[in-house]
Amino acid sequence: MEEDFAVFEFPFTAKLETLVAKDNNGLYYTRLAAELEALVAKDNNAINIADPKIENAGPFTRACGWHKLLPNKIVEMAKKIKKLGQDDPQRIIHSLKVGLALTLVSLFYYIQPLYDRIGENSIWAVIIVILVFEFSVGATLGKGLNRMLATLSAGALGVGVHHLATLSSEKGEPIVLGFFVAMIAATVTFVRFFPTMKARYDYGLLIFILTFSLVSVSGYRVDKVLQMAHQRVTTIILGSIIAIVICICIRPVWIGEELQNLIANNIEKLGNFLQGFGSEFFKIPEDRQPLSDIAFIQGYKSLLTSKNNEETMANLARWEMWHHRFGLFHPWKQYVKIGTLTWQCAYKIEALNNYLNSKIQTLNEFGRKIQEPSTKICSESGKALRELASAVKKMNQPTSVNAHIENSKTAIENLKFMLDTYHLEDADLQEIMPSAEVALTLIDVVPCIVKIADAVQELASLAHFKTPATRVSP
Amino acid sequence: MEEDFAVFEFPFTAKLETLVAKDNNGLYYTRLAAELEALVAKDNNAINIADPKIENAGPFTRACGWHKLLPNKIVEMAKKIKKLGQDDPQRIIHSLKVGLALTLVSLFYYIQPLYDRIGENSIWAVIIVILVFEFSVGATLGKGLNRMLATLSAGALGVGVHHLATLSSEKGEPIVLGFFVAMIAATVTFVRFFPTMKARYDYGLLIFILTFSLVSVSGYRVDKVLQMAHQRVTTIILGSIIAIVICICIRPVWIGEELQNLIANNIEKLGNFLQGFGSEFFKIPEDRQPLSDIAFIQGYKSLLTSKNNEETMANLARWEMWHHRFGLFHPWKQYVKIGTLTWQCAYKIEALNNYLNSKIQTLNEFGRKIQEPSTKICSESGKALRELASAVKKMNQPTSVNAHIENSKTAIENLKFMLDTYHLEDADLQEIMPSAEVALTLIDVVPCIVKIADAVQELASLAHFKTPATRVSP
Repeated sequence: MEEDFAVFEFPFTAKLETLVAKDNNGLYYTRLAAELEALVAKDNNAINIADPKIENAGPFTRACGWHKLLPNKIVEMAKKIKKLGQDDPQRIIHSLKVGLALTLVSLFYYIQPLYDRIGENSIWAVIIVILVFEFSVGATLGKGLNRMLATLSAGALGVGVHHLATLSSEKGEPIVLGFFVAMIAATVTFVRFFPTMKARYDYGLLIFILTFSLVSVSGYRVDKVLQMAHQRVTTIILGSIIAIVICICIRPVWIGEELQNLIANNIEKLGNFLQGFGSEFFKIPEDRQPLSDIAFIQGYKSLLTSKNNEETMANLARWEMWHHRFGLFHPWKQYVKIGTLTWQCAYKIEALNNYLNSKIQTLNEFGRKIQEPSTKICSESGKALRELASAVKKMNQPTSVNAHIENSKTAIENLKFMLDTYHLEDADLQEIMPSAEVALTLIDVVPCIVKIADAVQELASLAHFKTPATRVSP
Repeated sequence: MEEDFAVFEFPFTAKLETLVAKDNNGLYYTRLAAELEALVAKDNNAINIADPKIENAGPFTRACGWHKLLPNKIVEMAKKIKKLGQDDPQRIIHSLKVGLALTLVSLFYYIQPLYDRIGENSIWAVIIVILVFEFSVGATLGKGLNRMLATLSAGALGVGVHHLATLSSEKGEPIVLGFFVAMIAATVTFVRFFPTMKARYDYGLLIFILTFSLVSVSGYRVDKVLQMAHQRVTTIILGSIIAIVICICIRPVWIGEELQNLIANNIEKLGNFLQGFGSEFFKIPEDRQPLSDIAFIQGYKSLLTSKNNEETMANLARWEMWHHRFGLFHPWKQYVKIGTLTWQCAYKIEALNNYLNSKIQTLNEFGRKIQEPSTKICSESGKALRELASAVKKMNQPTSVNAHIENSKTAIENLKFMLDTYHLEDADLQEIMPSAEVALTLIDVVPCIVKIADAVQELASLAHFKTPATRVSP
């Protein structure tokens, strides 16, 4: 059984570390937590099944066993609920916001003067609030605007097709209607496969089919199609607006901010690792203490699995047009580009991490020789990354990054010169390998960091980051 | 500008390769295609912007430029549509299936005897078909069953709450209703954050809120709540069943099959790489020809980004309970486990791939020495992986895998012995490094493959894979 779970060790600990070093990225956190939960559940099941007392007992004893376990289960459940809320209190707030929006929208049904104006169709506003209300402002706006646009255009098309159908004979009408519904539904379903459409308008296209079918099909039985379409569109817009207003006004979750923090934190994690690695790997063994902050410097591991969110988040962030800090034309794509570069850099760093875990007990002569330029590369590029992270987070122009990068380039030249001129004399290969590999990998990592720096500088000029106030000497 | 796109080189070519070596995984393909499309679009934009004729021209010339570009755009669009259909004809079939299902369900509205029985609520069946119909059987079944269960339970609860509300005074009724709606909506919204619930029942929980609110809120105005709830439930079940039947009966896409093929293809890709690498890296430079099938052996790169789908696919596959090959209790979780192991193995292999690209021009003495055991490890473990892949695909017990693994373990012992006993005499470090690193990485890769083999064997026993008919000697 133990062996069985040993294979999960890597992802499991990686996940735990990510949970500990949790950043603001709710999306990613949810997925990770799901995997973790699944692993823990598997673990619990395994223990239950392995318990011979329960396994080999009769049905009655078994029921008793479960009976005894039940209070534990309830306590466990309560703990889980509490933890879920504590981890991200925004979730509780979101739940209450949904409740509030629903109560507000159902007032249109309860209060007679409002009901008289909108009528039975106000139930549509309730449906819309439930379907449109999402965790982040971007997602809610995206769904709401998609919904309104799709409803308007599909409603108009539906009314048009209905008019066309009424021109034909009474028997021909359902045939014409059926033909149009099938054709338009098939076409729009196909359009949904287009990657560019899928990324931003998938929901709108679905609603387009829905509204078009509703209006043109029910137009067959309802006499006042125009009035019906008008009422529906009004209620749908009403519902969307209520959802959007409550989402924005009460403790909003801006996905653009989350994306920015995510990217900045990821760059910072790479910097943390490099700085930690430099001081740890080349430490003289006698000085070495058990590494207490291993989880901290290995925070970058979360990058290896988080690639896909950034694309989704950037797509959603684009809907948050009115966010005060970002404005209408914020270059969200640039964040995705920086994310990709960071991700590639994390792969290279993963190779370094393997050497941190390998059991080198003595820093041999070769190791001491390359120690100085290698630690220099680590600390300088680490500083550059942390400066870049802070620039992204605070939306400042990065100022001293170039100096750090130049320093690490110089250190690389020194290191290369040492490697080229070093001659092995009857040395043990397996002893030299780790240090030499680390050196080669470091030489490989710096160009990646230069690319990240260039991309961040591009972002800074595209998004007009402000120059930090320089201190004037008195 | 060129430099700007150079940073995209790695993901871009990786994606292209994945598209070429496209397997049946529609989900993943869509996402990749989206990224590719975005990159290409960016590329096109960049070219347009960079075109000084358009950039520096006045508004009129610019309009003319666009006017000239328009026919090209249309042709391009048509090509895109054609390609999208050719890449996966199943998409066209899916679009037509949606059209057919909608036409069928709207018959309930057009045909008088059917309409008389179900009434105006039959429009709900139309809504349901549009919302429930998904690309794969698993997703459609998941949504359909979620929808039916949620509607039944929420409908019952809604009727109950309505009764409770009618017991209070006329003024109190909307207050009681509002309280329950807000409370239950907030609670269920919070429950949706639970990872285990989110994975399988997210849609059901959303529909639960929707139906409960609909029944209890509109119950305030409608007198015959029970009859209304009954009619809605009937039409929703009707719509779900039509969607499910058409999805299953006409050229179905079983996501379980796709998951199985995905896992098998991934294992095979690892095998392809190892076999190709062994023969390529240790080739004597004079024999070396330009590697024509580099894209083929680098197919494993798609694994590095595809991790998350497997979890989703396994969750959906579990709904395909009636698939003839898999049965009700197929161990879908085991596929996710194998997927995780394959993914870890791909990381290690990525390190090997870097050496394939490095410019080693001569196979030095050291390289020749380790050539024999290293190529043996590559070919034997490659064979083991390909056998495992075919076992998963054909659902056969893997038979000769253990022999191949034993062979590669023996080769590893030989290689370790050589490394331990090899002494460097005034050799150039940078010359020896690549071969030595490859050797160490290979020693690291085999345990990963053993884990994959164990997991596949566990799957074979859990899912009762059949033993392939052994040939009886005459």
